[in-house]
Amino acid sequence: MSILAQQRLQEIADVKEELAQRDWFFGTSGNLSIKVSEEPTTFFVSASGKDKRKRTSEDFLLVDSNGKAAEETHLKPSAETLLHVKVYSHTNAGCSLHVHTIDNNVISELYGDEGKVTFKGQEIIKALGIWEEDAEVTVPIIPNYADIPTLAEVFAEYVTADQGAVLIRNHGITVWGENAFEAKKALEAYEFLFSYHVKILSLKKYNQSTLT
Amino acid sequence: MSILAQQRLQEIADVKEELAQRDWFFGTSGNLSIKVSEEPTTFFVSASGKDKRKRTSEDFLLVDSNGKAAEETHLKPSAETLLHVKVYSHTNAGCSLHVHTIDNNVISELYGDEGKVTFKGQEIIKALGIWEEDAEVTVPIIPNYADIPTLAEVFAEYVTADQGAVLIRNHGITVWGENAFEAKKALEAYEFLFSYHVKILSLKKYNQSTLT
Amino acid sequence: MSILAQQRLQEIADVKEELAQRDWFFGTSGNLSIKVSEEPTTFFVSASGKDKRKRTSEDFLLVDSNGKAAEETHLKPSAETLLHVKVYSHTNAGCSLHVHTIDNNVISELYGDEGKVTFKGQEIIKALGIWEEDAEVTVPIIPNYADIPTLAEVFAEYVTADQGAVLIRNHGITVWGENAFEAKKALEAYEFLFSYHVKILSLKKYNQSTLT
Amino acid sequence: MSILAQQRLQEIADVKEELAQRDWFFGTSGNLSIKVSEEPTTFFVSASGKDKRKRTSEDFLLVDSNGKAAEETHLKPSAETLLHVKVYSHTNAGCSLHVHTIDNNVISELYGDEGKVTFKGQEIIKALGIWEEDAEVTVPIIPNYADIPTLAEVFAEYVTADQGAVLIRNHGITVWGENAFEAKKALEAYEFLFSYHVKILSLKKYNQSTLT
Repeated sequence: MSILAQQRLQEIADVKEELAQRDWFFGTSGNLSIKVSEEPTTFFVSASGKDKRKRTSEDFLLVDSNGKAAEETHLKPSAETLLHVKVYSHTNAGCSLHVHTIDNNVISELYGDEGKVTFKGQEIIKALGIWEEDAEVTVPIIPNYADIPTLAEVFAEYVTADQGAVLIRNHGITVWGENAFEAKKALEAYEFLFSYHVKILSLKKYNQSTLT
Repeated sequence: MSILAQQRLQEIADVKEELAQRDWFFGTSGNLSIKVSEEPTTFFVSASGKDKRKRTSEDFLLVDSNGKAAEETHLKPSAETLLHVKVYSHTNAGCSLHVHTIDNNVISELYGDEGKVTFKGQEIIKALGIWEEDAEVTVPIIPNYADIPTLAEVFAEYVTADQGAVLIRNHGITVWGENAFEAKKALEAYEFLFSYHVKILSLKKYNQSTLT
Repeated sequence: MSILAQQRLQEIADVKEELAQRDWFFGTSGNLSIKVSEEPTTFFVSASGKDKRKRTSEDFLLVDSNGKAAEETHLKPSAETLLHVKVYSHTNAGCSLHVHTIDNNVISELYGDEGKVTFKGQEIIKALGIWEEDAEVTVPIIPNYADIPTLAEVFAEYVTADQGAVLIRNHGITVWGENAFEAKKALEAYEFLFSYHVKILSLKKYNQSTLT
Repeated sequence: MSILAQQRLQEIADVKEELAQRDWFFGTSGNLSIKVSEEPTTFFVSASGKDKRKRTSEDFLLVDSNGKAAEETHLKPSAETLLHVKVYSHTNAGCSLHVHTIDNNVISELYGDEGKVTFKGQEIIKALGIWEEDAEVTVPIIPNYADIPTLAEVFAEYVTADQGAVLIRNHGITVWGENAFEAKKALEAYEFLFSYHVKILSLKKYNQSTLT
């Protein structure tokens, strides 16, 4: 494995370890990827069905631009690898993270019928690279199609910038960014917004139209 | 101790350590077991009354198909060993986990009179091996009989598949599966469903009939 | 220091470390003690004003039956040492733990005017050594007198058994038991009851008379 | 680097590590500083844009009384260094901590229009150095001006004592104190008060005028 590939593998394994400590991969849910090369595109993606609290040499495998194993391996790529494929084929992002948290699932359900949720007036929005005063950020929420190619197609409609996020209804968030550092930073910012919003809702009367 | 027995002991001790880090064994509650052999059945089960945050050589003991010590030992099996006996005598499961969490106790109380709770529309249900679109999962809730043989008999009525779960009202959940990995995966999925549901209930008006 | 004293010091330092990991000593709050000898009574108690997330050789000091330093030291015993004195002079307990948690403060406020809170129907009550079916446990709640001798006098009225607990309104819980293991086990059981109850209250309509 | 400077750097790095373990620096938010010398004033402050879960030799840089790098470095001081400058120029404080938590953001929003929030009747207020019976503590809440010099000017109006705290609306809390130990102690006490208050509000009917 090239030095660069080793370095990328180390970076994504470190992110996995930190997110696992927060219990963001309950029930082997979630998956992560990091780009290794362009032309041709290769990236490491989570192997299917692993307990992400453990760190082993079989947590990730290298796949090609179609999400197929790029090297001889007995490992299977995550069932949702196709979403990572969309990120790398539609943008210049270098890392993509998909996690289930209680609060991101709750937000995806509360605003699922509207198809999006908007946050504004929170300083942490700057962590998403949005620096205007009174900045807003909107996260699209898509239905959780059981058919992964269908899900990936609908997901891909929102994969239009080098950094972004999509909530899948009752199926967690996918966040992508320039590299592991930027993707994790954005993920933490979104999760902060979700948790803040859920807590404010539990205190004020539940009224979607007046709360942000 | 055979290599196999050592390996099983290591597996269940690892699960115990992880669940203990989440504080799922408050007040020495909870117990765990892992099958070592069939014909005759033997399994390791938690020794009674230990602080599960510590890892010692006296955390588990080997018991036979009736839950009696299979070897000379001063250790006493958990008072609830009989429930683990039911799992191994009624199914091919290889591991059984019983934990108290705030949210599993809350769910068991909210839906205790109905005798069951049903979840649907959550991606994490796939972690329970249920892959249909719009899959549902129902967890039975049984009364917390103080008499353990009675409790075990009622519990056993629901121990009909190689993977499953039963909530005991205000007394936690018991989850079993093929092995330590599968049982922990299922336990995490159930706990995710419980925590999600409790949070949604706290946001919407409390109305059992319209929420899932 | 005697072997026994060293062992007790190790035990209470281990408990401190675990409770500190749970952030149960915010703002240097809380204090702990463990009995070393009887006739005359000596016990280790937290030194005043230490950050309990750190483990140092100055976390505890040995005091006599009046709570005065039993050995030459520059350390000051916790300002609330007098409550520990009451535990050791009124009972045969060997360990006493005082912590502030969000949920124990919330319970102490919600039920403060009633002077007590009662829990029943929870399996975890067995961890308090109460094994009857449908067992109840009542925790007295006393006002938070700023004058420590006054507080200690009122506290002492409830220190009548070798294991027990008292909530001080908006000032945490004190739990005592036979030894470090038993005191921590009971503390965890009480905290479980408090957290469970707070969560149930947030889901059902707030109605003190109908909820337990 | 002088022994003293090394010691201060170690202290602030230890505080950072502990607060990072609590996830109080989501999305690279937050910043910390510790004074090294007076006449001229120099202090270590967080380098801009670092992941505070990691401990590296580039987490802090030494700056002068205006917040400009005091030594040749490629590191950039935190964008909010000017607030730390105000702390050291207006008081004798030795340490200043700025963190975003869900609960401090929620409190800052709920009471933002009033411009302050007051707590009373909580034992933990003593950790703020306020020892009277029925002591009160009031935390000012200022608008989150996007222009940092403006924010720093408004912030500075409340920086009048050697220990204190200011909430910035939806932008976390800044707490300062004599040294790292005192600042962290005060920060934990404020966070306890916020979390307690948020939980009480979720249980009682939301009514700002009757709750404290």
